[in-house]
Order: sequence, then C-alpha cells, then structure tokens
Amino acid sequence: LWQKIADRMSKDWIFLTICGIIMALIAYLMDEGIRLLIELRFWFYKGITADPFGQYFGWVLVPVVMMVFTAFFVHLISPQAAGSGIPEMKTILRGVTLKNYLSFKTLVAKVLGLTVVLGSGMPLGKEGPYVHIASIVANLLSKMATPFRSIYQNESRSNEMLAAACALGLGTCFAAPIGAVLFSIEVTTTYFAVRNYWRGFFGCVIGASAVRLLSVWFQGADTVHAVYPTNIATEFPFDSRELVFFALTGALCGLLGASFVWIHRHYVLFIRSSKALNKFLQKNRLLYPAIITLLISTLTFPLGTGQFLGGDLETEKQLTHLFSNFTWTSTDLNTEQSEIVSHWTTKYTSVFGNLICYTLFHFFFSIIGSTMAVPHGMFIPALKIGSGFGRLMGEFVAWLFPLGVRYGDCMSPIMPAAYALVGAAAFSGSVTHSISVAVVVFEISGQIAFVVPVLVAVLVANAVASLLQPSMYESVIQIKK
Amino acid sequence: LWQKIADRMSKDWIFLTICGIIMALIAYLMDEGIRLLIELRFWFYKGITADPFGQYFGWVLVPVVMMVFTAFFVHLISPQAAGSGIPEMKTILRGVTLKNYLSFKTLVAKVLGLTVVLGSGMPLGKEGPYVHIASIVANLLSKMATPFRSIYQNESRSNEMLAAACALGLGTCFAAPIGAVLFSIEVTTTYFAVRNYWRGFFGCVIGASAVRLLSVWFQGADTVHAVYPTNIATEFPFDSRELVFFALTGALCGLLGASFVWIHRHYVLFIRSSKALNKFLQKNRLLYPAIITLLISTLTFPLGTGQFLGGDLETEKQLTHLFSNFTWTSTDLNTEQSEIVSHWTTKYTSVFGNLICYTLFHFFFSIIGSTMAVPHGMFIPALKIGSGFGRLMGEFVAWLFPLGVRYGDCMSPIMPAAYALVGAAAFSGSVTHSISVAVVVFEISGQIAFVVPVLVAVLVANAVASLLQPSMYESVIQIKK
Repeated sequence: LWQKIADRMSKDWIFLTICGIIMALIAYLMDEGIRLLIELRFWFYKGITADPFGQYFGWVLVPVVMMVFTAFFVHLISPQAAGSGIPEMKTILRGVTLKNYLSFKTLVAKVLGLTVVLGSGMPLGKEGPYVHIASIVANLLSKMATPFRSIYQNESRSNEMLAAACALGLGTCFAAPIGAVLFSIEVTTTYFAVRNYWRGFFGCVIGASAVRLLSVWFQGADTVHAVYPTNIATEFPFDSRELVFFALTGALCGLLGASFVWIHRHYVLFIRSSKALNKFLQKNRLLYPAIITLLISTLTFPLGTGQFLGGDLETEKQLTHLFSNFTWTSTDLNTEQSEIVSHWTTKYTSVFGNLICYTLFHFFFSIIGSTMAVPHGMFIPALKIGSGFGRLMGEFVAWLFPLGVRYGDCMSPIMPAAYALVGAAAFSGSVTHSISVAVVVFEISGQIAFVVPVLVAVLVANAVASLLQPSMYESVIQIKK
Repeated sequence: LWQKIADRMSKDWIFLTICGIIMALIAYLMDEGIRLLIELRFWFYKGITADPFGQYFGWVLVPVVMMVFTAFFVHLISPQAAGSGIPEMKTILRGVTLKNYLSFKTLVAKVLGLTVVLGSGMPLGKEGPYVHIASIVANLLSKMATPFRSIYQNESRSNEMLAAACALGLGTCFAAPIGAVLFSIEVTTTYFAVRNYWRGFFGCVIGASAVRLLSVWFQGADTVHAVYPTNIATEFPFDSRELVFFALTGALCGLLGASFVWIHRHYVLFIRSSKALNKFLQKNRLLYPAIITLLISTLTFPLGTGQFLGGDLETEKQLTHLFSNFTWTSTDLNTEQSEIVSHWTTKYTSVFGNLICYTLFHFFFSIIGSTMAVPHGMFIPALKIGSGFGRLMGEFVAWLFPLGVRYGDCMSPIMPAAYALVGAAAFSGSVTHSISVAVVVFEISGQIAFVVPVLVAVLVANAVASLLQPSMYESVIQIKK
C-alpha cells in the first residue's frame, strides 16, 4: 500500500510539474504575442502619419480587424473558447460534463483568440481564459501520456487534478502563487479537501517560477519581481482613523460591484430578449464585435476623448500609474511625477475629472466588451475599475486633508496609492465574491504593509455585494442555463 | 427563510466581533504583562549589582520562581491548560468531547500561566495557547449570551464557530490575518467548507486590527506595522540560480524538522517509560520544571555561555536581528550594524559559531522546555530555530560568494536576511506540516518580495518532513493516546 501511495504521489507532482512548464511556455509565448500586437497598434497610430485623421484611422482599424478576425476564428474552430472559462470550470467541477470544452481545438482557439484580443487593447482581461487553458492542458496531458492515465480514471481524483490545474492557470497568469491557490479554492469549490492544498501550491509555484524565470532568461529582465510594482513607504503606512475611509471605499466598491454584475446580466438578457435584434446579430455575427470595437477604440483615441481616459497608456502602465506613490494634486512634483500626472490631466479637466471618466468608461465598456463572443476575462478590468475608483477616493481624501491626519505630534500624509490598492482589491472582490483577491493584490503589487486596510475593505465590499447580487461567475452560469 | 438566514448571519458576525475584541484585549493585557516580567528579569540581572555572581543569581532565580509558580498554579487550577492547545483543538474539531477543556478555569490558568512562562524568557512560544484561549472565549461567550445560544445548538455550526475562533486566536497572536486563516484551515480541518472562509477572515481581521490599534492607542506606538519588520531591498531580490540554495535550505530544514518531531516524541516516551523516573517526577511535580528552568537560564546567562546564544536579547530582538538586511561577515559595517553583530560574536567565536550554538540550543531546549506541564507553543521556537539556521546558510553562501552572483553585466549580492526568512518558513512549515507558514512569515516580516523562494523552500521542506515523520501536532495526539 505504502508503495502504491508513494507511486501516486510522485506521479501527481511529476504531472503538475510538466503541466506547469507547458503552461508557463504558453503564457510566455502569449505575452510576447500580445506585446508585439500592442506595438503594432501603436506603430499604426504613431508611426505612419502625423495627420490626426490618419492616426485615428490606424488607431481604430487595427483593433477592429483583430476583433473581427478573432470572433470569426473562434466561431469557426471552437465556439466553446469564447468567454471567461471560470463559470464553465465551476460547472465541470460540480460534475457536469460539457462537450468539447476541454479539447485541443478549444485550446488553439482560446490561446490564439486571447492573444489577439489582449493585443487589440480592448478593456478585457486574461485570468479566466488562463484557468481554462491550464485545465485543457491538464486534460490533454492526462489523455496523451499513458503513465498519467490512472489519474483520470477515478472521477474525484480527476477533479482534484483539474482544481489544481485551475490554480496553476491563475498562478501563471499573475505570477502570484498564494493568491491564485486561494482564489481557485474560493471560486471553484464548495467543499475543499485540505489534502489537495499542496497540489495547488505546487502547481502554482512551478507555473509562477517558470513564467518569471522565462522572462528573466529571454527578455533580459533583471530579475523576478512583482507584476505591477508599487513603492509605498511602509514606515508609517496609515493612521488608524483612516480605516473609516478604507471601509467606506470598500462599501462603495461593494455597491459598484453589485451594480456591475446586475448591469451585465440585464444587458445580456436584454439583447437576448429582443427578437429582432437577436435575429439580426445571428445573421451578422461579425458585425456586433466590429461595431463594439469601433466604438471602444473611437472613445479611447488619445487625441480625442481618449485623453480623458488615459487612452495613450497600456493596461500595465495604467495600473503602475494608479499605484504610484505620490499625491497627484500636489503642487511640487518632480519631472517623473509630472510625466505621470500629464497622462491624467487635460486642458479641460483635472485629475478628478479624468479619474471619473476612466472609471466610468471601464465600468461600462468592460461590460459591453465582455458580451462579444471572444475569449476574455473579468479580473484585470475589475482591477482597473477598482484602482481608478480607489485612486479617486484617495485623491479626494488627500484634497480634504492636504496636510494629512494629525496624530499626536506628527502629521501623517494621506497616500492615495494605498486607496488605489484598497479599491482594486475591494471592487474585484465584490465582483467575484472572493476574499483572496486581497492576497493577489499584495502579490502583484509586491507590498503587504496594507494588509489590514485591504482586508477590511474587501470584507465590507463582499458583505455589501453578496447581499445584493450573486457573483459574476454565478450570474454567467444563470444566464447560460 | 430569508429573514432567518439574515438573522443568523448577522449574529455570526456580531459574535465574531465581540470574540475578536475580547481576544484582542486579553492579548494586549498579556503582552503588557510579559513586557513587565521581562523588564523585571533584566532589572534583577542588571539593576541590583555589578557582581557577576549576584547577576547570575538574579538571572536564574526569577525564571525558576516564575516557572515553579506556573507549574503549581496550572496544576492546581486546571491541568488542561498545560501544553499547546492545537492538538486538543484538532481532537475537538474531529468530534471528540474533552472534559473541562473549554472552561473558565482553564482560561484563567492558561492566560496567567502563559504570561508568566513567556515573561520568564524560556524558549517557548504562544501561538498554540492563543488558539486555545480564543476557543474558550468563543465557547464561554456562546454559553453566556442568550442570543448566541442557537449558534451552538447545532454541532456542525458549533464546530464552524470554533474553527473561526481558532483562526481568530492565531490572527491576534501574530497580527497576521491571512496567514492565520490559512494556518487554521491546514492545521485544524480535513475537509473545509468554503462558505466558512469569510468567518475566519472576519474574525482574524477584527482580532488583528483590534490588537494593533490597542498598541497604537495605549503604548503610543506610531502606527500599525509588521511584528518583526525587515527591510530587504526589493529592487533585485535574488538571482534565479540562487533558487538552488533556497531549495537546499528547504530540504535541510525538512530533515531538521522531522528530527525535531522524532526527538520530541522519543524524549517524552523515554521519560514516561522509565518507571522509577516517572514515579519520582509524579511525587515531586515542581522539581522537574525547576531543574529544567535552572538549566536553561544557566545556559543563557549572558556573561557565561549565553554570549554564544544571543542570550542578552529578547525573542523579538533576536528575530529582528536575524532578519536584518546586511551581511554580518562584511568588514565595513556602520555603527548600528556593528551593534547588532556584537551580540552575535564573542572573543572566542565568529558569527558562524554563534549561529550554530544558537540554532542547536533552541533546537534541543525547545524540545526539553516543552515537556514542562505549563502553557506553551511551538511556533515561535520553530521560527527562531529556522531563522537561525537560515541565517547560517545565508552567511555561508555570502562567504562562498563574497562578490555575489554574476548575472550578465551586474553582480547581485547574496542577502543572508532572505535565507533567514526562507529558513524560518521552511523549518516551521516542516514541523507543523503546513504551507501557510509562508504567508505568516510574509505578514510578520512585512515583505512579500521573496514569495517564490520561500514557497519553493516550504514545499521542499514539507515534502521531506512528511515522508519521514507526522506533524508535531499529530505526534502529540499520538503521545496522548
């Protein structure tokens, strides 16, 4: 018996190692592809002509072509590749078999589709598809390799490995192993067997290390570091009375999150219930993504309305800016700081106006964008909405108390970056009904000093959101029924 | 039905809030008591006389009196208060009823006993007793307050609340909410219902916030910060090839951890099996703690062998030193750094000798100390042993590669502090068979940049240790059977 257990255990970890390395390679290639596509788009926008009309044409044409291509490609190869993937994995882990959902065709469609979608600069994310991709990899690997076949003979064991693969996918996505394990536990299971705990961690660590190491070795990155690094002074993180503002941010994020889920569901149901519209869209499948992409790209055009939305920045830059540790409304900024603020102010609006526009734009157009039948996730958009809103709150509090909060003899300044972190965690937590997003936020920002404020806000946001609406994933499952 | 659920939910969180606040108050009072007792001991040692013999007398007398008093007091009031508490909570959560284990008498004995034990400077910890104390508070609260009675009517619900109370206890102990929730899940349950997840987090956040805020308000601490803060440069955390050393540290910590558990069990069984010794100790209950305490205090006497063991430092200082970010063997140290190193070198030994002595002393005397029938925990001793060993490894690697590891054009120096963190997590992980200690280490050190090395080491250590020995808690359950 002991021999048998040892055999199985060793196979488990070999299986997860191979899974992790394959997944990291896929992730690395996708990241490279996305980077190239984004460069291509910016080259079309800036490189060809200085004429605003030509620039607009380049800015809009590339994403429209990309999205139409993706919608066509996904529909042709495997319609199962559209959407996030987490709701479907939830369903599969509950014991329902979804046909063709874990096939090789779906893998190809999902990987290529996601690369193009993210390269097109639409306000969509990647964590759900990563979960889906990792699950497919695990499923295919188990079918291909004879020694692993035994793993999938027993259904409960097969589910255990799939759950570990979900964690692995998330771990590779954000290079945030701890948060990924917890997120996958919260999001995919109802009862969790603690003996599986190490599997998730093992898979995540392999995935996260491999993906970070690949970027060190091939991209010449200096070292392994946080994805969206922040640098908030930790000597004096926050005054205890600021917890009230943090909790308030959490409550507002909870309300926003619940409305996000509600609006998303009702928008989808509205499109479906209108028969004429539905029929028209069925006939012209590619028209819908084309129109939506055209609309979104037009709005983000940096010389037009895009100037109010940080439209000239990529997602990564936007988040790094929102997490940057200085008060944007401050009057004495150094060159680097002014450069950052210049992206968030215009001749007509202040920082506040831009942050409001940014948050509202991402709020509504993440919903609308997510109704296109292409692979996409919800987590990065939620992070962006949340950090935009949090930053807004933080700048507002800093404007209310420009000298900071007096405590005893010393003054502690308000740090809007902390509010951005809190908002990001609270909003994404309220949309997904999960607490572990707090850990994800610590890992992607590389800082854990704000553990108490972030957790307070996430708990408040979760309490508010779960009173009002189901989670985004449950809502999608309801819609699909 | 909805109303009923809402009622229950709201009661749950009110219950946990009250529990958390009571627990934080107890923790605060205990911390104050411990601080006073430690000051008293140092005053006896330094304040009365400059004569080495008198100093020795003061240094040894105080802890012996304290420990004998505690052993007597605990035996008199409630023998159930001795030991850690986590093995017993594991047993209770498996459905076994242990008599008098959650009574008020036990609470009093445990709180007072633990305060005196920690104040005596013995190499013992506090996390197990905190779990026990929080569980008693939850149990008593549920009996006292009529509105809460319904919570404990149903056994599964009563277990849910007890599990949340365990998490709360740990959260209060280290002010590390996330790690505490995960640790309590890993250590106390086999199957975990994800719907309880928020309870643990809620309890922990209340406990951790309350205990940190109390220290801000009453002790005039500047703000809420990490317990053992470290400050490792995060720009370039580590070279990817250093992962080999980190994994090696993990493997060695796993071996050490397994031997720790083995030696502990065999030492206890040896004392029990020897009839003459057993009879003698039964008759002279207070002699055993007196002898052990005399031995330990003699060895740690700062003017004698204590100079090799960092004997003149309290636990908190020891850990802060071990996590300090500079190479102890370096030749150009500033004043502050030299001050730190001066505690870890003597006329006769270098840093290496002292670190070996420190690690071995804590390794053996934590085992011997834990056989006294007083309240004590295993986690802080494990942290100390692990960080001592990790620091040793780190200083050794830094000595092997004094210029650091070359990578491309730039040299990255070895940071022994990172090895101390890794060792602390890996050793305590291998003793408790848990992965979540990694998160606890991030939270108490306030840094998450080393997430990959720490997780790699913890996983390796767990794999090695679980092949060889059961966890410390399971081992204690086996002994008590």
